[in-house]
Amino acid sequence: MATAAGPLLNDIKISATPVAGSFKAKFMDAYHRLKKELITDSESFSHTFESREWVSKMLDYNVPGGKLNRGLSVVDSLVLLRSGEELSEDELFLAFALGWCIEWLQAYFLVLDDIMDDSHTRRGQPCWFRQPKVGLIAANDGILLRNHISRILTRHFHDKPYYQDLRELFDEVEYQTACGQMLDLITTPPGEVDLSKYVMDTYLRIVKYKTAYYSFYLPVACALYMSGEDDKSKFESAERILVQMGTYFQIQDDYLDCYGHPDVIGKVGTDIEDTKCSWLIVQAIARAIPEQKSRLYNNYGRKDPACVAEVKKVYNELNLEKLFLDYESESYDNFMSIIDDEKSIELQQVLKLFLSKIYKRQK
Amino acid sequence: MATAAGPLLNDIKISATPVAGSFKAKFMDAYHRLKKELITDSESFSHTFESREWVSKMLDYNVPGGKLNRGLSVVDSLVLLRSGEELSEDELFLAFALGWCIEWLQAYFLVLDDIMDDSHTRRGQPCWFRQPKVGLIAANDGILLRNHISRILTRHFHDKPYYQDLRELFDEVEYQTACGQMLDLITTPPGEVDLSKYVMDTYLRIVKYKTAYYSFYLPVACALYMSGEDDKSKFESAERILVQMGTYFQIQDDYLDCYGHPDVIGKVGTDIEDTKCSWLIVQAIARAIPEQKSRLYNNYGRKDPACVAEVKKVYNELNLEKLFLDYESESYDNFMSIIDDEKSIELQQVLKLFLSKIYKRQK
Repeated sequence: MATAAGPLLNDIKISATPVAGSFKAKFMDAYHRLKKELITDSESFSHTFESREWVSKMLDYNVPGGKLNRGLSVVDSLVLLRSGEELSEDELFLAFALGWCIEWLQAYFLVLDDIMDDSHTRRGQPCWFRQPKVGLIAANDGILLRNHISRILTRHFHDKPYYQDLRELFDEVEYQTACGQMLDLITTPPGEVDLSKYVMDTYLRIVKYKTAYYSFYLPVACALYMSGEDDKSKFESAERILVQMGTYFQIQDDYLDCYGHPDVIGKVGTDIEDTKCSWLIVQAIARAIPEQKSRLYNNYGRKDPACVAEVKKVYNELNLEKLFLDYESESYDNFMSIIDDEKSIELQQVLKLFLSKIYKRQK
Repeated sequence: MATAAGPLLNDIKISATPVAGSFKAKFMDAYHRLKKELITDSESFSHTFESREWVSKMLDYNVPGGKLNRGLSVVDSLVLLRSGEELSEDELFLAFALGWCIEWLQAYFLVLDDIMDDSHTRRGQPCWFRQPKVGLIAANDGILLRNHISRILTRHFHDKPYYQDLRELFDEVEYQTACGQMLDLITTPPGEVDLSKYVMDTYLRIVKYKTAYYSFYLPVACALYMSGEDDKSKFESAERILVQMGTYFQIQDDYLDCYGHPDVIGKVGTDIEDTKCSWLIVQAIARAIPEQKSRLYNNYGRKDPACVAEVKKVYNELNLEKLFLDYESESYDNFMSIIDDEKSIELQQVLKLFLSKIYKRQK
């Protein structure tokens, strides 16, 4: 793999970097507590033996199996926003609970996305809807996951001054994610290919709404509310840069799918075979001469390895790897200058933490 | 059809019965206003031409096509709770908006239920997911419908003292409905038949959560909040009786599927062919002698008209029609005595209105 000119990872100085993974075990404890609360009978609903077992299994299968980066970044952000002041055990649990709400939100979308995309595997195991006895019941499980978020928020945040803001934040971000998913689905309907729709404006809009808000802005906004922030402009400036970072993150993802090493990224990329609206194909179509364009149209979205190789050949002719590496360096400079303009030192630290986690990542 | 002894419909006196359908036209106007607000760009999301068209079509297809009883009953209830005091145009619109939130909630569940049940038609037209170009994208449309409810509530009720209560009410009822749907799905998984699970306790639990809360309790609770009610005991007593009425309503539905006249109910019942966990089969299994039970097991859930006839024969041997008619009369006496115990005359009127709409209904 080529290396790009640009700043090194350790140029990003964070004064109070949380030790990576230091919260992982406690975060898992919080999961078990939240799960137990959700499967216990309440005034709202009394379980049968079977329904309690079903929900328990469904949660364990779908919620905690990812990398948990989004969920853990709530507490990491809060630690930085509190700069030094230690969190009580109760506050720690609340930050974990918000982190888990984000993981629940992700699980809800993934369960339904996998049905819509007719996917086979997720996080190294069969998709939930492919489990025997589950099938399309998974759609209702998605709804249950979504409902659990409201229940967690009401149970643990009802008395907080920021309770209503938090509820509206989750609603807003869920809506944006669903809108992004809609854009994606109507641009690239499953089973249909129309590369003429793969243009940069559409690509950026899909990524912004479908991924960036819930993955990058949501954890920081949660931490800001918990830290007692009520200056709306703080949320807005966080939103502006974090949505851009989320976009950069997805573009990296698309790049790594083709140019990352399978042993490092942990999978063999199949975006070309799967007709994905990837940053690479969007850039390729925009830059290709007619002869290259017709090779892309003839070979994109086919399982045949020769077709995949042909697409990659066009990518190489168009120098897309360099295009990405240049974009990466420019993005870094852009992010650092926005961060330097941020007045709050604590928020600067949070944004630098996010940047350090993703800049030049190889997986 | 046999007639049952029991009180006549006009025994139920309602002092201020709203003229049926008098609000229908204005209610539809409110739909168009809400829809317009939802497809207009906002700070949360900017549409593309295609996405705006998609949402517009999806809403028209799924939201306003039902009988609108649930939605209209919010304003009907509010009129009675205000006993005489006229509603302003603004209040009228807000009551319509809450009514539409219930219709949106129903649309959301129906779109997803139809996918899970692999249904073909809904309200006399093909299910949304069976429309060309829709398919499983319908699952995301279900999510959008759900998100619209939060947006309507936030936009129009944010400044009301009961805003938070309203949000939590919709969350609670959505959760109960999803739990009821889960119970139904795991008791009668699509494509599997196990009549031994069809017992009265399970049946009643499914009906209570899946149907009664959102169809009967939710509209009245909305009207109570709008009327300024903040006595929790009022909500609790309304909940108790309305959930029972919702159960009675579903049992009627099951009865009419078999014994109602197709020309009157507007469809040919297929609960027997579809292996539905109906009140009739639950009662039949509980009462059948071994010989009858084996006829039920051998014939329930088969498309063959001879099998359907055999099941109906067992129903008749067990006198299920009389069983239902007795249940209907007893229910009436029970409801009237609970209503008479209610201290608020206004709430009594609301409950009587609901009872008058469903008692001895033929469709």
